[in-house]
Order: sequence, then C-alpha cells, then structure tokens
Amino acid sequence: MAKDMTKTHSIYERRESEARSYCRGMPAVFTKAQGSTLTDREGKTYIDFLAGCSSLNYGHNDPDMKAALIEHIEHDGITHGLDLHTDAKGDFLHAFESHILEPRDMDHRVMFTGPTGANAVEAAMKIARKSTGRTNVIAFTNGFHGVTMGALAATGNGYHRGGAAMDTHGVTRMPFDAFAEGVDSVALLDQMLSDGSGGIDAPAAILLETVQGEGGLNAASPEFVRGVAEVAKKHGALLIIDDIQAGCGRTGTFFSFEEMGVMPDIVTMAKSISGFGLPMALVLVRPEYDVFGPAEHNGTFRGNTHAFVTAKTAIYKFWSDDKFQQELAHKTVMITTALNEIADMIPGATLKGRGLMQGVDVGSGELAGQICARAYEKGLVIETSGSDDEVVKVLAPLTTSMDTFRKGFNILVDATRDVLANTKIAAE
Amino acid sequence: MAKDMTKTHSIYERRESEARSYCRGMPAVFTKAQGSTLTDREGKTYIDFLAGCSSLNYGHNDPDMKAALIEHIEHDGITHGLDLHTDAKGDFLHAFESHILEPRDMDHRVMFTGPTGANAVEAAMKIARKSTGRTNVIAFTNGFHGVTMGALAATGNGYHRGGAAMDTHGVTRMPFDAFAEGVDSVALLDQMLSDGSGGIDAPAAILLETVQGEGGLNAASPEFVRGVAEVAKKHGALLIIDDIQAGCGRTGTFFSFEEMGVMPDIVTMAKSISGFGLPMALVLVRPEYDVFGPAEHNGTFRGNTHAFVTAKTAIYKFWSDDKFQQELAHKTVMITTALNEIADMIPGATLKGRGLMQGVDVGSGELAGQICARAYEKGLVIETSGSDDEVVKVLAPLTTSMDTFRKGFNILVDATRDVLANTKIAAE
Amino acid sequence: MAKDMTKTHSIYERRESEARSYCRGMPAVFTKAQGSTLTDREGKTYIDFLAGCSSLNYGHNDPDMKAALIEHIEHDGITHGLDLHTDAKGDFLHAFESHILEPRDMDHRVMFTGPTGANAVEAAMKIARKSTGRTNVIAFTNGFHGVTMGALAATGNGYHRGGAAMDTHGVTRMPFDAFAEGVDSVALLDQMLSDGSGGIDAPAAILLETVQGEGGLNAASPEFVRGVAEVAKKHGALLIIDDIQAGCGRTGTFFSFEEMGVMPDIVTMAKSISGFGLPMALVLVRPEYDVFGPAEHNGTFRGNTHAFVTAKTAIYKFWSDDKFQQELAHKTVMITTALNEIADMIPGATLKGRGLMQGVDVGSGELAGQICARAYEKGLVIETSGSDDEVVKVLAPLTTSMDTFRKGFNILVDATRDVLANTKIAAE
Amino acid sequence: MAKDMTKTHSIYERRESEARSYCRGMPAVFTKAQGSTLTDREGKTYIDFLAGCSSLNYGHNDPDMKAALIEHIEHDGITHGLDLHTDAKGDFLHAFESHILEPRDMDHRVMFTGPTGANAVEAAMKIARKSTGRTNVIAFTNGFHGVTMGALAATGNGYHRGGAAMDTHGVTRMPFDAFAEGVDSVALLDQMLSDGSGGIDAPAAILLETVQGEGGLNAASPEFVRGVAEVAKKHGALLIIDDIQAGCGRTGTFFSFEEMGVMPDIVTMAKSISGFGLPMALVLVRPEYDVFGPAEHNGTFRGNTHAFVTAKTAIYKFWSDDKFQQELAHKTVMITTALNEIADMIPGATLKGRGLMQGVDVGSGELAGQICARAYEKGLVIETSGSDDEVVKVLAPLTTSMDTFRKGFNILVDATRDVLANTKIAAE
Repeated sequence: MAKDMTKTHSIYERRESEARSYCRGMPAVFTKAQGSTLTDREGKTYIDFLAGCSSLNYGHNDPDMKAALIEHIEHDGITHGLDLHTDAKGDFLHAFESHILEPRDMDHRVMFTGPTGANAVEAAMKIARKSTGRTNVIAFTNGFHGVTMGALAATGNGYHRGGAAMDTHGVTRMPFDAFAEGVDSVALLDQMLSDGSGGIDAPAAILLETVQGEGGLNAASPEFVRGVAEVAKKHGALLIIDDIQAGCGRTGTFFSFEEMGVMPDIVTMAKSISGFGLPMALVLVRPEYDVFGPAEHNGTFRGNTHAFVTAKTAIYKFWSDDKFQQELAHKTVMITTALNEIADMIPGATLKGRGLMQGVDVGSGELAGQICARAYEKGLVIETSGSDDEVVKVLAPLTTSMDTFRKGFNILVDATRDVLANTKIAAE
Repeated sequence: MAKDMTKTHSIYERRESEARSYCRGMPAVFTKAQGSTLTDREGKTYIDFLAGCSSLNYGHNDPDMKAALIEHIEHDGITHGLDLHTDAKGDFLHAFESHILEPRDMDHRVMFTGPTGANAVEAAMKIARKSTGRTNVIAFTNGFHGVTMGALAATGNGYHRGGAAMDTHGVTRMPFDAFAEGVDSVALLDQMLSDGSGGIDAPAAILLETVQGEGGLNAASPEFVRGVAEVAKKHGALLIIDDIQAGCGRTGTFFSFEEMGVMPDIVTMAKSISGFGLPMALVLVRPEYDVFGPAEHNGTFRGNTHAFVTAKTAIYKFWSDDKFQQELAHKTVMITTALNEIADMIPGATLKGRGLMQGVDVGSGELAGQICARAYEKGLVIETSGSDDEVVKVLAPLTTSMDTFRKGFNILVDATRDVLANTKIAAE
Repeated sequence: MAKDMTKTHSIYERRESEARSYCRGMPAVFTKAQGSTLTDREGKTYIDFLAGCSSLNYGHNDPDMKAALIEHIEHDGITHGLDLHTDAKGDFLHAFESHILEPRDMDHRVMFTGPTGANAVEAAMKIARKSTGRTNVIAFTNGFHGVTMGALAATGNGYHRGGAAMDTHGVTRMPFDAFAEGVDSVALLDQMLSDGSGGIDAPAAILLETVQGEGGLNAASPEFVRGVAEVAKKHGALLIIDDIQAGCGRTGTFFSFEEMGVMPDIVTMAKSISGFGLPMALVLVRPEYDVFGPAEHNGTFRGNTHAFVTAKTAIYKFWSDDKFQQELAHKTVMITTALNEIADMIPGATLKGRGLMQGVDVGSGELAGQICARAYEKGLVIETSGSDDEVVKVLAPLTTSMDTFRKGFNILVDATRDVLANTKIAAE
Repeated sequence: MAKDMTKTHSIYERRESEARSYCRGMPAVFTKAQGSTLTDREGKTYIDFLAGCSSLNYGHNDPDMKAALIEHIEHDGITHGLDLHTDAKGDFLHAFESHILEPRDMDHRVMFTGPTGANAVEAAMKIARKSTGRTNVIAFTNGFHGVTMGALAATGNGYHRGGAAMDTHGVTRMPFDAFAEGVDSVALLDQMLSDGSGGIDAPAAILLETVQGEGGLNAASPEFVRGVAEVAKKHGALLIIDDIQAGCGRTGTFFSFEEMGVMPDIVTMAKSISGFGLPMALVLVRPEYDVFGPAEHNGTFRGNTHAFVTAKTAIYKFWSDDKFQQELAHKTVMITTALNEIADMIPGATLKGRGLMQGVDVGSGELAGQICARAYEKGLVIETSGSDDEVVKVLAPLTTSMDTFRKGFNILVDATRDVLANTKIAAE
C-alpha cells in the first residue's frame, strides 16, 4: 500500500500528501510573483487569473504593503501576538473603523479568529448558536464555507462533504436564489419555517454568500438577499454573510452586499483581508451578538501581526477614497464584455457572476477543464468552479491593468478556440 | 444591549470582540520583540515565558529567519501559493525530509492544511475516519485540540465546549494517564473496546497529546503512550499524536514521542513549525493512510509561503545536528530545579510537565492567577494552564539564554513570594 | 414544585402524567365500546369519529374478533410469544399472504417489530440505512412518524420535535406535495439530489405518508407519489411508505398506495393492523432489503399473540373478497358530500384528505377546536389535525353504518352552526 | 438476491423477516401455555425458564387475570383507549397507587407511553433532557435499553448498535459496577464530571439497570447504585432506573432498587407490568420532572386497556400483602443453590445475578449455547445472556412451583452434563 518514495520522484510526489491539487494541473514550480504575474523556476511567466482564489485581490507583492512589511520585520515588530494588543493591530483596527466600518454605518465588533476562512465561519456559526440558544443554521445549495466539521456542514459540495467520512450536524439546506426553476426560494424557506409542522427547527442563523464563488459564480439577486434578511429577522435568526471570497472589493464594492439594502448581523472575512495574501480572518459581529467570553473561541494564530501590517496598508491605499471602487466599475464592464465574447463562441454558454468574479458556464466540466488546461499552457493561470467544474472563472487581481486583462482574455479566447477546434476534429 | 462605542475607549475596547483574552490581564500595547524579550509602546520590556503558547520556540524575530524572510519578500518571492509547487515549499520539504523524517525512520507524507492547529486536527480526524470507515475517535480528559467543531469534539475543556452551543459528535472520552487514582486507563480502554457490549463504537483513531499543554501540563508516561499505541493497533484504530504544542523541541526532542518507542500513524503540527510564529500547520500521515483525494480537505492559506521560508531556516539552524537538543537537555534540568524551588514555597504544590513545558500546580486557579499577574507587573509574561488554571506554566522560547531564564525565574520567585505574603496578611 | 396529590383530585389528575391529552377535552370516563359507539361511566353514549386515531378501523369490539380472542384466551393460547413460532402467528401470516400480499403481487417479508407505529418506523429507517450504507432519510413537511428519536427526526411537528430537547439526526426535510404554491416538490428534490453541490447527502430512503393524517389530511397526488418513487430509484434510495394511519382500508383500499402505480420497498403498518385496537406493528420489506440479522432489531412485545388472533380474523372478514372495499367507496362519497356541506357553512373552508380520512380545514385551530368541543358535548368524539389544528378530521370506524354516519354528521353540522352563531354574537 | 418463496418452505421461512431469532434455536410451533409450561403443536411440553424475557413473571395465562380479561372483553370493555380516561385505567392507577407507590413513599406520576420498553426509555430520556436543558445521558457498559435510536444510544451491545447503521447521539458510556478490575466506577465518573476539562458534558441523567439482564446478569452492588445516585444529585442529573427487566418482583422485591436506599427520579417499566404478557409500558416520574405538555410524547397504543385490566389484577393478587415477596425469598435461595451446583460442574464457571434473575457464566458463548440447545431438546426453554452469550440465564416465571423449578434444574444439570461429556469426547 505504501507509496514509492524513491528519490527519482520529485519531493512533492515523494513527500506531499495526495491532497495536493492545483499543482496537478499546473505543475510548474513558482518562484516569484509581482502584480498579476507569476514566474516559474524556468523563468516562464504566467498571467494570474486565479489570484489565490481571491486572496490576492491587490496582486502579488504590492510594493507599498511589501515595504511596510519589510520595515515591520526589520524593526523587530511583533510577528505572533496571540490576542495581545499590538500597535499593528491597533493601527489596523483604526483604519478598518475609519475607512470601512464607519462610512458604511456599521457598528460591528471585529473578532480575529484563527487565520482561515473556515475558522471564521466556525466562529460565526457558534456565535449565532450561542446568541440564540438554537442549533440550526440554514445554508444553501452550492454554498462553500470551508471543510472543518462545523463549516463543512454548511458546505454543499458532495466531494468535500464526503471527505468527512461522517455525518455533519446542525445545518439545513435550502435552494439558493434561482436554483430551481419556478421556485421562489425565499418564499419556500419562509413557509417551511412558518409552518408549525414544517419540520425545520427554528434557525440560529441563515448563512449565505451573495455570490457563490466555489459553487459556480451564482450571484444572488438583491431581492433574494433582502428576502433572506427579512426571513431571518422574522424568525429570530441572525443573518450571516460569508464575504470571504466575494468581499474586499471582488464584486466592485468592499463588501459584496453594500448595495443590497441589508445589514448582516455577522460577516465573515478572510482571503484578501490581509491584502498581501497572508493568513488572516475575522468575523464582524454586531455588538449585541458579541457574546463569546474571553478566548471562548480561540486559536494560536489569531494575532498574525504581519497580516495586520499589510491589511492596514491595503485599506489606506485602496479604500480611503472612491478611486479604486470607480476603477473596479470600469473593469467590471470590460470583463463582462470579454467573457460575453467567449460565451458567444460556445453554444449554450452563459455568463455567471458579478463584478470581478465573473465567468462562463461552458456547459460541462470537461470542456471547462480543457480550456483552462490549454490556457495554462499558453501562460494563463485560471480555474474552474461549479458543481461539475463547468464554469471558467476569472478571479484576477482587482489591480490587474487593462492591458494585462486584455492579454489574459486573448489567451483565454485562443485557448477556447483551440479546444473547440480539437473537439470538432475529434467529433468528425 | 449595544456596547458603548464612544471614542474615549481604546480602539481595542471599542472595536475588538469580547473574545479577546490575554490582553485583559496583560494590557500593554506591544510593539517589538526580540528573542525572549517583548517591548511595549512605553518602552518597557518583558521577559517572555509564554512564547505565543509555544509558537515561538526559537524566540521572536530570530535573525536568520528574519534575514531569509526579508530576502524572500524583497525578491518578490511567492507569498500565497495555494497548493501550487513553489521553490520555498520544495526547500522546506527537502529540509524536513532530510533532517526530521529520515533520521527518525518516518515514511510519513506531509499534508499542508489550513494554517491553524485546529485545522490540522480536523484533517487528521477526517483522514482516520476515511481510512477506517469508522466514525468514533477516542480522546482523553484534559486534551485540547482546538475549537472548530470537529476538533472541539475532542477537546475536554468545558468552557470551550460550551462555546459551541450545540452538541459535538464523533468522539468518546477516556481518562488520560494518571487521571484517576487506581485506574489503569489503558487497561480500561482496552476492556471497553474488547467487550462486545462495551458500548464504545469501534474507533477510527485514538488521539492524544503526550503532554497536555492546555490541560495542565499532564505528561503521559511512555508506558501509557505505548499502551495506547497497542490498543489502537489491536482494535484497528489509527494512532494520532497531536504534537502541536509539545512538538518542535518543546519536550527536548523534535517530536514529543521520540523516545517512547511508538510510531504514530498521524502527527499534527502547528504553532512552532514555521519557526517564526507565522501561521502554518501540517499533518504527517503514513502513506497507507494518505487517502484524501485532491483538495478533498482544502483551505486557502495552506500554502503560506513566508512560513515555508522560515520553517526551512529553522530546521537547518536547529535540527541539522545534535547541538540544540543537547542544549535543551541542560535547560530542562535547570527549569526543573527552578520550578522545584517555587513549588517548595507553596504547601501542596507539585511539579507538572516535561522538558521545556513544565510548571507548578499551585493548588488553585486563584493563586496561580495572582502569581502570574504579579509577575507581569514585574516584567514577566507568563500564563496558567489546567482545568482550573491552577498550573503556573513556563513556555519560554527554547532559545532563551540561561541568564534570561534565571532573570525570569527570579521574577517568578519574587512574584510568588509577594502573593503568598499578601495572602498571609489577608488571612490574618 | 411538586403537584398537589390530595385525594380530592381524581386519580388521573393525581397520578397520571401531564402528558395525558385527549382526556383533557373529553373528560368522560369511558367504560364500554361497541362498533362506533363509546359509553361513559354515566351511561352517556358517544358516536366515535376518532376510532383510536384510525386504530379501530373495524370498530370497537367487533363480534367475530371478540369471539376469536375469547376462545384463544379460554384455551390458554399463547399471549406473549417473543418471536417464537406460534400457531396464531402462522395463521396470521397465511391470511396476510393469501389475502393481502399475493393479490397485490407483493413479495415483501413481514417483520414484527415492537407493537408501536414508531417502532416500525425506526426499524424501517434502520433497514434502509443498513441496506444502502447511507444515513440520510428524506422526509416531508407535515409528516408524522412517531416521537422516539429515530422516528421523531422524520416527524415535522415542532411541538413534538421540541419534546426531544435535543437535536434529531439523519433526516432531511423537503416540501410535501402542494406544500408551497408553485413549487414542484418532486422536481426540487430531484434537482437538489442531482446537483453535486446540492448539499443533501445521498439518501438511504425517502419516507412518506400518502395522506398525512396528523399533518392536516394532506393527500398526495398519485403523480407526486410516483414522482417520489422515481426519484428514490434514480438516486439509489429505498421508498418507504408509512401506512400506519392511512393503511388498513382507511383510504378505501387496504394499502393507501394501491392505485398509484408504485411498489414501495418498505411499508410500515400499525394502528388498525390488529383489527381490534390491540398493539401490533409490522414492517413489510422486499426480500432484497431484509437485511437484519436475528434480533438485530428486537423488542419484547414483537409477538403480541392476541393481536395476531384478531388480525387474522380481520383479514378474513374484511379482505377476502371485494365487498368491504366497495362499501368503502360508497361511504367515501357520502363523507365527501357531508363534509362539503359543513365546509359550505364556513367562509374559506376547504375539504382535505381522501377516502375515509377526510376533514374540513376551517381556517383556524381555534374554530376547529370549538367545533370539536361542541360536538363532544353533543355526543360526538372527533378531533382536529394539522399544524395549527385547523382541520376537523373525520376518522370514523370504516364499519360505521350509514345511519350512524348520518347522526354523527348531523351533530357536526349542529356543532358548527352553534359555534358560528356564538362567534357571530361575540363579534357583534 | 430475492429469497426463495416457494411454498415448500414454512410460512415463517417464507414470509417472516430474517430478524426472527428465538424461533431459530427453538423451532417448535407453540400453541398453548399455562403457568410455567409451554405446549407445542405436537403436544410436547416445555418448562419455561425464559418467561418472555421476564415479561411473564406471573406465568402464562394466570387464571385470575385470564378471568378478568375475558370478563372485560365479554362486556365490551374498552380495548383501545388512547389516553382517554377509562374505568380500567383508573382501577389500575388506584391499585398501583395503593399497593406499589404509597407503601414505598413514592410520589411519582405515571406516564403511559407506547407499550414497549424502548418507548418508556425514550420518554424517560426526553423528560430528563427537557427537565435539565442538557443533552448528555450517562449509560453503562453492558446496559440494554432498547433498539430505537434514542434508547439504542444507551444500549451497549455492539450487534444491536450496528443495526442502526448510523451514529447514535446523546449518550456517554461509563464502566458499570465491577466492569474493570481495580476501577471504582463511581469515583471515576465523579471525577470526569467534576473536572472542568473532563470532557463529559454536564449530564441530564444517569441511566442504569440495577441488574443488567441482557448484559450478562451483572448485579450492581447497593454501594454502586447509591454512589451513582449521589453523583447524579451532585452534578444536577436525574437518576433513571430502568426496571423493565429487573422490576415487577424479578429481584425479589417489586422494584429492583427497593432495598438500596435510593429513590430514582424516573423509573421505566414494561415487560411484566401488565402481568399477563400484554404490551404495556410506563414511566414513573417525580412530579417536579413531569414536564411534558399534553401529548408532547405520545403513541397510539398508550392506552392498551386490556393490559390495564390484567395489570390491576396482578397487583391485587401478588402485591397487596407480603406473601408473594416472602415466597420469592425462598425461591431465590433455591435457585442460587441449584445454579451453584451447575457452576461446580464447569471449571471457572461463576454465578451471576440476583434474586430470580440468576445464571451461570460458563466462560464461553459456545458452551452456553450448547447447554441451552441441549436443554431445549430435553424440554426446557432457556436462553443465554451477556456480551458473548456466555451466561446461561434463568428467568423462570416467579410463580413457578418448587417442583417445576426442580424439574427444570434437573434438565439443566443433565444438559450440562451431556454437553460437557461430548466436549470431553471431542477433545480426546
């Protein structure tokens, strides 16, 4: 049963777990990265339309964050601070309060959790349960919230669910916006909760992404999100928006829900919150639900101070005025146009997503995979998404220049053309 | 219900969640750290006998790791690499293979999980369940394995368990070594598993720390650990050793179980594995149990490349020959001596722990808390541990100089004396 | 806290648990019963439109069953037979095979479970889980399957679910036929199961009543039941029909699903299966799913031999030819007509149910309760059903004579008129 | 896969589920039973040392109960009464109050549950959870409490647990009295519950049998039971004694715990409570914990009125004075003597149990099975018990005459001798 460990294999094959994944389709050994460009050991460069799955919204090694981080390290700034007060944490909190929370009228408290999105989701679910004295959390088809047992219960993906090799607990699944034709998901949810024999236990929370990043770039309509918010309120449940992938500007605004007329009780953030790709996660929680006692939810790395340094810089650089947000609006239009062009090449293909997390549902995971593989050969790092990996997903750094975007899309068009041509030939 | 947000409060009080903890008893704002010394905003210095709860075994801002990290950043090295191959990951794996695994005859694969200890534990439990097709994991009284729902099921602490506000699943609790007088915990476990009506479902794994760091520095005897390993084997369960706190040299050897004659099927590591206090976690798993499919357990930050850079440096610096380990042996003797002195001051106090994770059970959480608080005033950062926080726990950086150790212990002796004197006065 | 036990209270108030229920609204002490008539201690008679919640489909003390039972007892026939062979069990099985199973082309095996409906449901769910190796059972809004923990998970009623005071496990809830306007429940279920990220674990079984007796007399359309059967087959799940209340002729045929073109893998029966109101329950299971080992599911009273004696008699008397079934068809028409008349008296009222389990949804639990209370005063035992107890439910013995039916309905009309008049007066 | 249904097979093989059990080793078709004697279709008689697993403590077809039951049926007494008041229920409650509860100073309320022991256990667990707001129930190794999901969680037997094919929930297992050598089970339980990191959630209840009937006739010492009662009280848990098998005189007193100096908060009863072998179960609960709302726990057959009739008769006949109890004391001595004689025949064999539920642990399930099989051939119905079926268990009707006891034991001695002789021959 033991795998061969002979040294003729690469160190990755020899010693890294079979759980490794992206490296299988993109086997280069990467050594450098700047902005939207990755460079491998051989010096080959790649345009990055994956951006660490939206963890690198401001690109790789942003010069200002880089400078701030090096300065911090050079001066022996705190690296690991548990949940002690540090100047870096204070500075981040000031920046976050002034430029993110206050302008959006948010009185939320910031809880630094273990620095993974899953950890933030776990904390959020626990807070909702502790606040309400209820267990049940409503989550949606195609939602992805992480793979630790609490969060996994809320994750829809069957492959990931299977990895637990045991039943998950505490979550009820409902159809997401537009999941099933003719089904008003909000009305159905409300009715199941309202009926005394609906058989859905009173919920502690309703948990959703406004755009399901892993689930296939399904963008909820504002009406759906508002409807969910109303149902939550009506039934005494907290509204948790998981903005881990869709937050930090990815949809065009800092939070993905800003223009929807809702105010979540809890927001989870991770991925791009540090700005630099460093592990960091947090939970925003309205003061009345800030119910954890000291360290009741804890974690060794909840004070990753390097991340606080870059996160503060990111906020000042990108979110202290409107410029960046206006840029995102322009880029959104461009992305939509470019992806429409690709969708037009493929019969039945449709656009998915919103803002700078858009993609094309090409109808099958096989086709999407072939397009991404061909794009990689041509120097574009891009991935699929969706239940069947049927969506070619563009998650470029938000800071990608128009020129680089154009180059990337050109590669994508070429890759699509190549694959379609081959498919045609094969079919003949 | 909403908490007061007036700006007369500090940003931490105003915006940080009530879950913040260490900062309550140690309210300084820390700005710098070097070796075993922390410095606050006012320039006051503190000796660090907490070391990020054993995440800073090589001290703060080790100069070699610092240099390597700065160089990596300056050259635009990868920061966030998902699970793509990077030179930094490859270098770490080579170092870990050559200096850690091979010398110890370990054929384990390395799985990089989300960079928190809890995430590593979650992955380990899932691997055991998937490998065996069983659900039940045996864990022990006073074990601490994290607070996400899967790991929390294995954590004994009632306060943390309560934070879930729902039942946990999939874990059976058994008494740890020497937990109950006259009870042979291994024999009891074996008998309960052997009896067809013992009512304990066949286990996927037995999960333990060899020294329970949070649980009160309870050090398992080698006989107990061997006994558990035999019971695991006999009943078809995997042996998981959680070496998150006790590993990376904390007990005097790289792994805490090295001299016990057991070979765990799975080992979890985090805290000091990066060497520098950066978030990083991994699971070591024997090839035959490396059963996850690609990304079946995943996480955005599983490729925290900064951590790979410092982790590699740490291995070469501290573990490529025997010198460091010999140093640890000397320091262990010194710590034992110093703590015995303190124990002698307090009626009924006893020594706990092993290697460089030792402490004094002073009989009550109140007394232990007072001693730590007084020590903090005198410039020593130190914490309690145990069910009732009754153990004053020394978790200094392993690299702490003999001189600094002495200074730290002097403060601890003084603090203890002060507290005992006050207690006496109060009693009179 | 202790309740007053003074002997001025009746023995029921003094010693019976607060869980007692029907006796609160119908406080008579009953002493005799014959056919469709109950007699209380004072000699007052009541027409029985409740029939032990469909446990007395052949009326009280049917003379033939009574004679057979007395003869059995007089001759020292077995009373309690565990699961030993007895002549009475053999005779029942022969009758059940010849007159029930064979004519309907059913190759099902008969499993005698503990003599409660809940126990049969528990066994059915376990069989499905053991057969498929899956945990998840799909159940529906407003389904009622019992209140022991396994069955309760499938029961929709929030009041009963609350009685568990803990989470239930292993069941996913879906909307029943026509539960939500515009929602095709079968299509939704299929889509959620078909989508790889639908988040509903692969089901062991789909469990349903064709008419939800407790849930408000919601009668599933044959299309829905067939659709569910197809979805079950497509997704590798067993189809379990819970015919505990709707079976034994209640809907006009022996099984409630006979004319729907489906063949369930498992059928649960209880209530009227003994014919005489004696505790008896069974599970019908297709041979390929008859997977329990000897006594793997057991129960002391699984061989209630008195019940076998009466059950056999009931089958020969009522089901050895078509006469009874034809009678039921006539009575169904009459009941529909009579209930329509009542529905016409109440604005917005609608007919519910099918066959001899029909009722009127009067729009509110309060009104329905008042009507039943008034009917009771006038000598009619009748109950409500539904999430809000909003349905006045007729569950008369199937053997009730046309004349008695007429008398009962006259009382019901009068009671309704009285209540409506009072309501009007109160409103004025 | 389908089993052969050809009519050459008996109806039992053809149509009864594979779950059938006792009939496999004792394949006679029984037709009559009187006192301690069973008669099969061929007229062969058997002495009954199984008594419906203690459901027939007063023997088969006791003439007084039989007469009362026939009279009840002849006069069209209520058969199925839901939870309406009936004269029969009232009479039973009066008898139970006067002759059982009051003389023992018990203020408990009587809750009639679905008529199976498992249902009573489910109700008891729910009551404890609802009363305390806690989930966890402590149960013991080798306990047997039924196989519905709630009760099964408390049952230790691995074969029955496996039948669920899913995890059970809400129960923590602890070693029973004398389960493990040198382990003081009460002290261990107390310590695990007292330690803040003991990892056992605060219990709603501690559930135990004073003699584990199915688990191998393990008789708890009074000290153990008192200790458990104290631990329950100390930790705010209810004490539930499951007296389903050990109650109704089986241990020599009506309740098995009478002479132990404890007063359980909840007692579950079933099996012999009807006196006649009819399905009946109840929960005794102290008034302060009688927390169910009307029908919150319900069940169609909770008013099995035939059983009330015989149950009342049994109480008046056997428990209205001390005579029966004195008889039981004499018989206990005789049984102990007889079983000691058998134990002496088998090297290493030991006596198990207490009162009229005693047996011999013969060291292996194979030997015990052979002895019982041989005894059956010789006309004695007797069964094994224990994790490995290693105990030959005597559960004769309490009313068995000394003469019949002697005959039964003679058969048992002969059967043992035969088996031992054969074993010896085989070994030579």
